[in-house]
Amino acid sequence: MKAGVVLSGCGYMDGSEIHEAVFTLLHLDLAGVEVQCMSPEGNQLHVVNHISNEICKDASRDMLLESARIARGNIVNISSINVADIDVLVFPGGFGAAKNLCTFATDGATCRVNKQVEEIINKMLDAHKPIGALCIAPALLARVTGKTGLQIKVTIGNDREVAEAIHAMGALHVDCPVSEAIIDETHKIVTSPAYMLAQSIKDVSESAHALVKGLMTLV
Amino acid sequence: MKAGVVLSGCGYMDGSEIHEAVFTLLHLDLAGVEVQCMSPEGNQLHVVNHISNEICKDASRDMLLESARIARGNIVNISSINVADIDVLVFPGGFGAAKNLCTFATDGATCRVNKQVEEIINKMLDAHKPIGALCIAPALLARVTGKTGLQIKVTIGNDREVAEAIHAMGALHVDCPVSEAIIDETHKIVTSPAYMLAQSIKDVSESAHALVKGLMTLV
Repeated sequence: MKAGVVLSGCGYMDGSEIHEAVFTLLHLDLAGVEVQCMSPEGNQLHVVNHISNEICKDASRDMLLESARIARGNIVNISSINVADIDVLVFPGGFGAAKNLCTFATDGATCRVNKQVEEIINKMLDAHKPIGALCIAPALLARVTGKTGLQIKVTIGNDREVAEAIHAMGALHVDCPVSEAIIDETHKIVTSPAYMLAQSIKDVSESAHALVKGLMTLV
Repeated sequence: MKAGVVLSGCGYMDGSEIHEAVFTLLHLDLAGVEVQCMSPEGNQLHVVNHISNEICKDASRDMLLESARIARGNIVNISSINVADIDVLVFPGGFGAAKNLCTFATDGATCRVNKQVEEIINKMLDAHKPIGALCIAPALLARVTGKTGLQIKVTIGNDREVAEAIHAMGALHVDCPVSEAIIDETHKIVTSPAYMLAQSIKDVSESAHALVKGLMTLV
C-alpha cells in the first residue's frame, strides 16, 4: 500500500506543521504503508520568523524545497503524481495548508485552491480512494468538495469560527477530541484536530495515529 | 523534570535532523518531562538544497530562527540557559550538530566546538546531570570530553570511519543497533544511532525512545 503525503513548506507559521507531518509519516510507516511525499512548486505566501511571528519582508522560499527538509529529499512535484499509483492521500496541517495550498487563511470560505491540489483531490474522490487531513487542512477539502456539490463530514476540533466557514463552504463540521478522528465513510474522508486542539506534542502523535487508523479502515 | 533540547537548524543537511528532533520531543513528553528547546544564535555553516543536496551559495540562515520552526517558537538562546534549571540535556543529530555546533563534518577529530555548546556540556558533566545524543551528535560529546581527559563511552551505530574519529578524540566507541542505546553510567552519557542506522522513520522513533528511556534511568 502506498500513501501520498502533501506538504506545503517546513514550519507551522508559513508551511507544513512539522510535528503533524512527521507523525503522519511515522504512523503510516508503523502501519506498513509506503510513503511518497509531494508538494506543489512555487513560492510560499509568506516566510515567517518563528520566534517573533513576524512576516519576513522580501524573503521568499519555495514550498517544494522547504518541504524536502521534512521528507529528507524523498519528495516529488505534486504535478508528477498519478493517482492510480497511490492508495491514500494525506494532508498534514500548518498554515501552509491554508496559505500555500489554498488561500483560506486570508480569504476564508471564498478561498482559492492551488490548481494541482484541487485536481489531485478531485481525482482521489472520483477513484473512491481515501483522503486524510489534520488540523486546518480539512478546510481545504471542504472548499474543493463544496465547489462540486459534495457535502463531506469533517472536523477541525471545536473552533466555532473555522467550523462556520466549513459549513459556509458546503461541508458538515463535527466536533471531535484530539485523540480521535471523524470518518466520512461515504466520501472516504478522515480528519483529526491535531494542533487545533493538542495540549502537547504527544496529543499530535495520537491525532495522526487516529487519522491513519481511520484511513486504514477505508482502503 | 525538565530537559533541554539543543537544536542547530531545521533540516538534516544543514541543521537538526527533523525526525530525530521531533521524536526526542515526543518521547520526553510521553515520559512526563517538560522541554526547553535551545540553540546558539548565528549563521549556519551552510544552507543546503534538500532535493539536489547542493550548497546554496550566498544564502544564509540563522540556527536559532530555523530551529524555532521545529520548536514552534518555544526556544531560547543557549547562552540564556542555567544548567541548575534543567535535569537533562539532549542533542538530536543531523549535519547541524557536526557543521554548526562543532566543525566535525569538515575537520573530523580536530574539530572546534561552539563555545556556548562546549560550556553547557562541561557544566552538565560537572553537575553530574545526564546528557543524551543521537546519530552523529555523540561525536560532539566525544570532542568536548576528550579535551578534558574524560573517556566517555558512546555509539554512532557501526560506521568505522566515524568510530575511529571518536577514538581519536579520546572516547570509546561501542557498536549498537538502532533500537537500543549505549549508557555510560559513570559519565551519565546516553547515545543511540537514529539515522546513522535507521532503515525507516519508525526506527528513528525507536532510537529516540531508547535514548529517553536510558536518560530516565540516570536522573
